[in-house]
Amino acid sequence: MTAHPDFLKYVDKHADKFVQRLADAVQIKSISGDAAYREETIAMGHWLEKQLKGLGVTTALKDLGQQTLQGQRLDLPPAILGKLGDDPKKRTVLIYGHYDVQPALQSDGWATDPFTLVEKDEKLYGRGSTDDKGPIMGWLNVLEAHQAQRLELPVNLRFCFEGMEETGSEGLEAFIEKEAAAGEWFNGVDCVCISDNYWLNTRTPALTYGLRGIAYFAINVSGPGQDLHSGLFGRMVHEPMTDLIKLMSKLVDHDGQILIPGIESMVAPPTESEIELYTKMDYSIADVAEAAGASIALSDHKETVIMGRMRYPSLSLHGIQGAFSEPGGKTVIPSKVAGKFSIRLVPPQTPENVVPLVTAYIESEFAKMNSKNKMNVEHSHGGKPWVADINHWNFEAARRAIEAVWNKSPDYTREGGSIPVTLTFAETLGVNVLLLPMGRSDDGAHSTNEKLDLSNFIEGTKVLGTYLYEVAQLAREG
Amino acid sequence: MTAHPDFLKYVDKHADKFVQRLADAVQIKSISGDAAYREETIAMGHWLEKQLKGLGVTTALKDLGQQTLQGQRLDLPPAILGKLGDDPKKRTVLIYGHYDVQPALQSDGWATDPFTLVEKDEKLYGRGSTDDKGPIMGWLNVLEAHQAQRLELPVNLRFCFEGMEETGSEGLEAFIEKEAAAGEWFNGVDCVCISDNYWLNTRTPALTYGLRGIAYFAINVSGPGQDLHSGLFGRMVHEPMTDLIKLMSKLVDHDGQILIPGIESMVAPPTESEIELYTKMDYSIADVAEAAGASIALSDHKETVIMGRMRYPSLSLHGIQGAFSEPGGKTVIPSKVAGKFSIRLVPPQTPENVVPLVTAYIESEFAKMNSKNKMNVEHSHGGKPWVADINHWNFEAARRAIEAVWNKSPDYTREGGSIPVTLTFAETLGVNVLLLPMGRSDDGAHSTNEKLDLSNFIEGTKVLGTYLYEVAQLAREG
Ligand SMILES: [Zn+2]
Ligand SMILES: [Zn+2]
Ligand SMILES: [Zn+2]
Ligand SMILES: [Zn+2]
Repeated sequence: MTAHPDFLKYVDKHADKFVQRLADAVQIKSISGDAAYREETIAMGHWLEKQLKGLGVTTALKDLGQQTLQGQRLDLPPAILGKLGDDPKKRTVLIYGHYDVQPALQSDGWATDPFTLVEKDEKLYGRGSTDDKGPIMGWLNVLEAHQAQRLELPVNLRFCFEGMEETGSEGLEAFIEKEAAAGEWFNGVDCVCISDNYWLNTRTPALTYGLRGIAYFAINVSGPGQDLHSGLFGRMVHEPMTDLIKLMSKLVDHDGQILIPGIESMVAPPTESEIELYTKMDYSIADVAEAAGASIALSDHKETVIMGRMRYPSLSLHGIQGAFSEPGGKTVIPSKVAGKFSIRLVPPQTPENVVPLVTAYIESEFAKMNSKNKMNVEHSHGGKPWVADINHWNFEAARRAIEAVWNKSPDYTREGGSIPVTLTFAETLGVNVLLLPMGRSDDGAHSTNEKLDLSNFIEGTKVLGTYLYEVAQLAREG
Repeated sequence: MTAHPDFLKYVDKHADKFVQRLADAVQIKSISGDAAYREETIAMGHWLEKQLKGLGVTTALKDLGQQTLQGQRLDLPPAILGKLGDDPKKRTVLIYGHYDVQPALQSDGWATDPFTLVEKDEKLYGRGSTDDKGPIMGWLNVLEAHQAQRLELPVNLRFCFEGMEETGSEGLEAFIEKEAAAGEWFNGVDCVCISDNYWLNTRTPALTYGLRGIAYFAINVSGPGQDLHSGLFGRMVHEPMTDLIKLMSKLVDHDGQILIPGIESMVAPPTESEIELYTKMDYSIADVAEAAGASIALSDHKETVIMGRMRYPSLSLHGIQGAFSEPGGKTVIPSKVAGKFSIRLVPPQTPENVVPLVTAYIESEFAKMNSKNKMNVEHSHGGKPWVADINHWNFEAARRAIEAVWNKSPDYTREGGSIPVTLTFAETLGVNVLLLPMGRSDDGAHSTNEKLDLSNFIEGTKVLGTYLYEVAQLAREG
């Protein structure tokens, strides 16, 4: 059962309207990580609920409580739940997305205002265009195409949209657990589909079956009672920056190997069939260069580089808080600095088994320095890695949908990043979770000039709809 | 020849009047670094010239040209030149000071209005009280005590007061070179006296005979075309932060030793008589702890710690530009980072002989990493160190003056920071330069609640005057 032809035709015909809806969504500055935009983030939730209602979905706004952000006590943006169809003969698909976005200022280097969707060269530029407002609008497009033409949806749908994904999905895990109970919103869900990641490249659609976890750390070093002048105090006192930089330099080698004892050895070497998946992948060293904007791949071997992202842990040094970070030259000895880094985790690594190794190693390296400064290792947040079965009907339906719309077989990928909600759904509902990306590798989520290709938005909408038809078809095939 | 007793008596009798003059000077907000206060800075120059004239000094306002500050084209504050006495039988002493000050807002944490001199517990609080209006007023006090009592000054005096010291003494070096020529203002000067630094502690007067130079660097590392997401790119690409942190970790050891080959070995070990100077110094590890606000001295040996500041080079890591530096946890791979550090230099080090060593070392360390990122070492600014001969009559006169007024032998100190004009006078005029501090170590120049102890102002005035008498006396002694 391929998709209903009227659905596909409607999508092509109404592309402009769909783009306008995305523009309306991008315009709402739903920056969850900035207290100043909390009201607008909540407003985005309300806007989205209204859209769903207008498309025939039964909705509910769910209060997730409060948080303290930038010294303010704030309401969390609500979770938006939706329900459409309750036919016991149909499979029930749960759709997840997030309506909040990363911060963006034009002065960061955007060519255009980040919160005004701009179409240029068949690309839609704007904060949230690809992460994750584009995919959410894709689902609304599917609903509209069916509602407008009075087409029956082939499955029952449940929706779960949150507004805190970019800052840790606060409150969501407990909420999902609650809604998974008998009689609640997620009861009876057969599978989950999440569109919140990207193709491996700019050419071939992907299906994603793995995610790395993460453990985020700060190394806090403090000493002087206040910032000191390097002329007066240089070579008299233990400088926190000297200690911190030394510690940070001992974490990862320049070839990407993690130097913390016990981390690398946890990971099993790849099997031959696994290596074959990587060899088959539509991917080249030139793709890394293109995506990164420079020829800086860690190796010339495609498999090594792609496995570095997908099946090995990585450690990135993000920066230092409390040190001089402006242009120019200030001769300060900062009194209190925090070095930020994170480790991307792969099975069987978890924050629980990795954090103690990291903490013990840094503490022992610091002890060797005989510094009179104070040091502590802070683990701020983390999430487990996840791997799914690609032979499940949920993945099979998506594969068929992609082949029908794009006329191409997908790459089966594992993501280097984490989407913690994936694991929560998998563990809480006990069903297969599919990651079905809409955007391409060069979309620049979280970066300046974020975009979604127009074709990814429109053909991507067709994939989402077709996927639902294939889920229904596979149920019939048994 | 000690000072004329009437001079000393006059100073004691007119302390209130002298404090009032300092209050008048503090009230003028001569903040050279802020375009909004440029007129007031220039007004301060005019006020000072008028004071000098009133005290019998022949003066000239010297135009130093223009600068661009905060987007505005501004006249530089004038240099104030003065001349008093031209007796070929007398020595000619050149006095330097600066009439500009650092910015100050009460909201920065001042207990009282920074531009209203407030006397409390025998301390005079106000911006510029110790840096550097107090010392300049000290000289005016000396002149007044002589003029009012028709006492003859024992030396010829020349004055050079500038209004741009706090923002780099723009235009001053060329100006001093010009005025050093035959027939110009500084022609015939026998020695220079500068009061623009501080005692080593709060107890013992000091004479300062050395200053460290500085070489300021940025290590620029770039790779990706834009910031990358660590989930997507971690362990795929060479990360600029990994390279930079590794390079920065190779510059200085946690005990303060500079690891760049050739830097430490340039410096001769201390002679026994030099070590004795440090042993005699009124200084303890507790003083470091008090000044730094924590017990973080690099050693428990007083001599080691104080030599670290005074006679050895130091390397401080100031921070990183372009990396994540905010609170919270951002999982970014910064595309372009600049690690800032500076080296305080001691003879025979100069920016000229140190910069090539630093650059070559970092380049060779970077080459070992086989990184595909781009790296360059940038030397942004620098200044040579300076050391004077403490056996010169100029220092001897100051020592005698201190002993006469304070009944204590001075500490002979070298400063860890730089006062570039010192070197300019020494090299341009080819005469001995003396740094004769008026204030104490806890005065808080450049900080909130800057103060000058009343006793330092009044006894300090006596020291300045007595010093002139001792210069004359030593000339007679041959
Ligand atoms: Zn997202
Ligand atoms: Zn995101
Ligand atoms: Zn000064
Ligand atoms: Zn100053």
